[in-house]
Amino acid sequence: MRILPVLAASALVFTASSAIAQDLTAKASALREKALSDPSGWNVIESLTTEVGARPVGSPAMERARDWGVAKLKELGFTNVHVEPFTTPAWSRGAESAEVVAPYPQKLHILGLGKSSPTPAGGLSAPIVVFHTYREMLEAPDGALKGKIAVVTEKMTKTQDGSGYGGINANRTSGPGEAAKRGAVAYLVRSLSTDDTRLPHTGGANGGGIPAAALSTPDAELLEHMADRGKPVIVKLDMQSSNNPAAQAWNVVGEIRGSTAPDEVIVVGGHLDSWDPGTGAIDDGAGVAIMTAAAKLAGGAKPRRTIRVVMWGSEEQGGSGQAYANAHKDEISKIVVAGESDTGAGLIWNLSLPKDSADHPAMKAFLRAIGPLKIIVKRTPPQFGGSDIAGLILLGAPFVDFNQDATRYFDLHHSADDTLDKIVPAELAQNVAVWASFIYTVADSDIDFRKLATGAQ
Amino acid sequence: MRILPVLAASALVFTASSAIAQDLTAKASALREKALSDPSGWNVIESLTTEVGARPVGSPAMERARDWGVAKLKELGFTNVHVEPFTTPAWSRGAESAEVVAPYPQKLHILGLGKSSPTPAGGLSAPIVVFHTYREMLEAPDGALKGKIAVVTEKMTKTQDGSGYGGINANRTSGPGEAAKRGAVAYLVRSLSTDDTRLPHTGGANGGGIPAAALSTPDAELLEHMADRGKPVIVKLDMQSSNNPAAQAWNVVGEIRGSTAPDEVIVVGGHLDSWDPGTGAIDDGAGVAIMTAAAKLAGGAKPRRTIRVVMWGSEEQGGSGQAYANAHKDEISKIVVAGESDTGAGLIWNLSLPKDSADHPAMKAFLRAIGPLKIIVKRTPPQFGGSDIAGLILLGAPFVDFNQDATRYFDLHHSADDTLDKIVPAELAQNVAVWASFIYTVADSDIDFRKLATGAQ
Repeated sequence: MRILPVLAASALVFTASSAIAQDLTAKASALREKALSDPSGWNVIESLTTEVGARPVGSPAMERARDWGVAKLKELGFTNVHVEPFTTPAWSRGAESAEVVAPYPQKLHILGLGKSSPTPAGGLSAPIVVFHTYREMLEAPDGALKGKIAVVTEKMTKTQDGSGYGGINANRTSGPGEAAKRGAVAYLVRSLSTDDTRLPHTGGANGGGIPAAALSTPDAELLEHMADRGKPVIVKLDMQSSNNPAAQAWNVVGEIRGSTAPDEVIVVGGHLDSWDPGTGAIDDGAGVAIMTAAAKLAGGAKPRRTIRVVMWGSEEQGGSGQAYANAHKDEISKIVVAGESDTGAGLIWNLSLPKDSADHPAMKAFLRAIGPLKIIVKRTPPQFGGSDIAGLILLGAPFVDFNQDATRYFDLHHSADDTLDKIVPAELAQNVAVWASFIYTVADSDIDFRKLATGAQ
Repeated sequence: MRILPVLAASALVFTASSAIAQDLTAKASALREKALSDPSGWNVIESLTTEVGARPVGSPAMERARDWGVAKLKELGFTNVHVEPFTTPAWSRGAESAEVVAPYPQKLHILGLGKSSPTPAGGLSAPIVVFHTYREMLEAPDGALKGKIAVVTEKMTKTQDGSGYGGINANRTSGPGEAAKRGAVAYLVRSLSTDDTRLPHTGGANGGGIPAAALSTPDAELLEHMADRGKPVIVKLDMQSSNNPAAQAWNVVGEIRGSTAPDEVIVVGGHLDSWDPGTGAIDDGAGVAIMTAAAKLAGGAKPRRTIRVVMWGSEEQGGSGQAYANAHKDEISKIVVAGESDTGAGLIWNLSLPKDSADHPAMKAFLRAIGPLKIIVKRTPPQFGGSDIAGLILLGAPFVDFNQDATRYFDLHHSADDTLDKIVPAELAQNVAVWASFIYTVADSDIDFRKLATGAQ
């Protein structure tokens, strides 16, 4: 019989790993408690939004944000602090205005979308065609939009998991191109917003060679009311903007070097760039703050592996994640796990760990440590990770999804309302507590997510 | 004994007035029910906000609003529709911008206050002094504001009765003058707002000969955060505006003539002018809509007395109430009661009737009719009436207070967020139901509020 020796060996392993797990659990629990009352996360986001504010890629403010990031990481004791430059296309807003000129003269509140073309100098006036859903516009007969401004007024749904955004995202991202194909001279879309303020929400789009802008939700409804009366409604747009095909950008990096396995690296971060109307508090100063604070707290326990924080420098208009993956493809096998926080500062309400990792002692310790926070642990593997780690994921890096409650996120996202006062300090601290516990248990164990996922020993 | 004949006479009176009261109750109750499902109020406000929008006194839009008012009253069957012209000073906004230029360059969201002076061409830059309460500014030592921009960041309290506004109103209305007296070169006040959007709230102020503007609430907090760092914070303001000392304005009037006592008049209305950033939906298109719809419904029962609707033409910058009182002082004894609706479209949650009138059969009928709406009937007499009936009240006209739930009102008031979508149709209809029932019971009875108040028989 071979069963006894096997059992004995298992028991021995169990005892050893149980002791390790108990130590990890105790340390991760202490980190959780410390994080819940630690002001580090709040201090980082307060500093960034106050001292820098909005920081679109390609702007002077983004240079100030880069310098802020380097100084902040050094101030907090990170080492190997440096910037990794890259270039990427950057669209910049100029003066913008919109108004109904007939039959009911009224000003409209708009924000141009990324890659929007400018109008001719002096503006552009044309009758509008209102579509209550995006599908209706796609199904419009050929020529229906020739010489017209296409207006899509479809309403976004508020959801806890943010899926209302995915469901309607094409209205903004693909709308300008689809309208242009059908002959439209400009495109207006109801903001992808779940609030009812008169502040429009901008965002990336596919251009299409025509001026394209988001209407505030009350303005989209105003145009519906006007169009319902049956008379031609003439809108004048005056929008200026510029494109820089190769704007200078930077990923800002800092590390806490591992004590015994410094070449094994945990990569976490958020993106430092933002859209221009707000101060980039929830998108994504919060992610930068959460990850910087969590890494600092976890690093304070002097774990085995290296913890690296990356402040990606061009998420909104794209480029920083790919640049990072390109620069780090040779060390991909050394990246133990990657994570990004980029859905604001709402409570983490559910999470997915890499496939088959939940029974590993390190992850059991992590889950025990965050038990009091009552987070739903999904049985399915992570799906997304984050825009800036997508390149690493494609190269094979393990990753996690720690999903934040997005109920209010899309009230504020990409609008002037993305400001510090919208962040609830206790919710921000909960995020720091979860990430700090996770980062620590991975960094101070030998968990190998790749092996667990493939069943290799 | 004379008691029996007295009792008999009382019984006779009681029987007669009881029959009248029963008839009034039945008709007022029917009006209440009709109003709750009648779209008239909604249709009026939808029409005004869509076809006219913002309508500051002295603007071309106010001329369109005047024509809209005349046409709407005629369309709804009012008679004696006319305009009563007057002149009044009018302040008009020009281009405005504000930014922190050092040490942390960021744009600020402002709206100039009424009577604000323009800045010199090219703008004005100065260091700020932040006061967390208005009282602190008033107590600042002589010369503390010399050459500075005074900033008051006191927060408004949200209340159901709107008293949070009264408590802080002087910060805006008197602040510019008080800051100027102390040597300030400009004045910035945290918006009198109970919301956290980045939209500032404008309003009337005393001028003071300096530029004066409201900051959005996030911008007020941003300046607090910057000032906390101790370095001089330099703000640049560029504000243009103009004053017309004698702008043409109009009160728009329509009547439903009384069947048997046409010279006895019930005067009700709202104000047709609005501030410029929103579409004047809650302030005060709603009041215009509520009173127009209520008068039409009450008038449909062909009551004894005349019902007059007035759309006052310059409440925000003042003038229309005084002009109305001046023009109508000779008929003051014929004005049975006056009422104004000017706190949005929230539910009427309590009301005050004129002194000692609650036991009159007409008011008993009214209170029975609105019983199902569960409105608190205050024991104290009315206190305010409304800005546009203040002149009539000074001349002796009886009046009522029907108080609307103001919980959300100051989220929106005087900002770009004052738009149609903020009005809940069922709440608007409740207002129409209450006013229609009241107007009808007064118009179809012989109640004399003056006599009841003085105890005269």
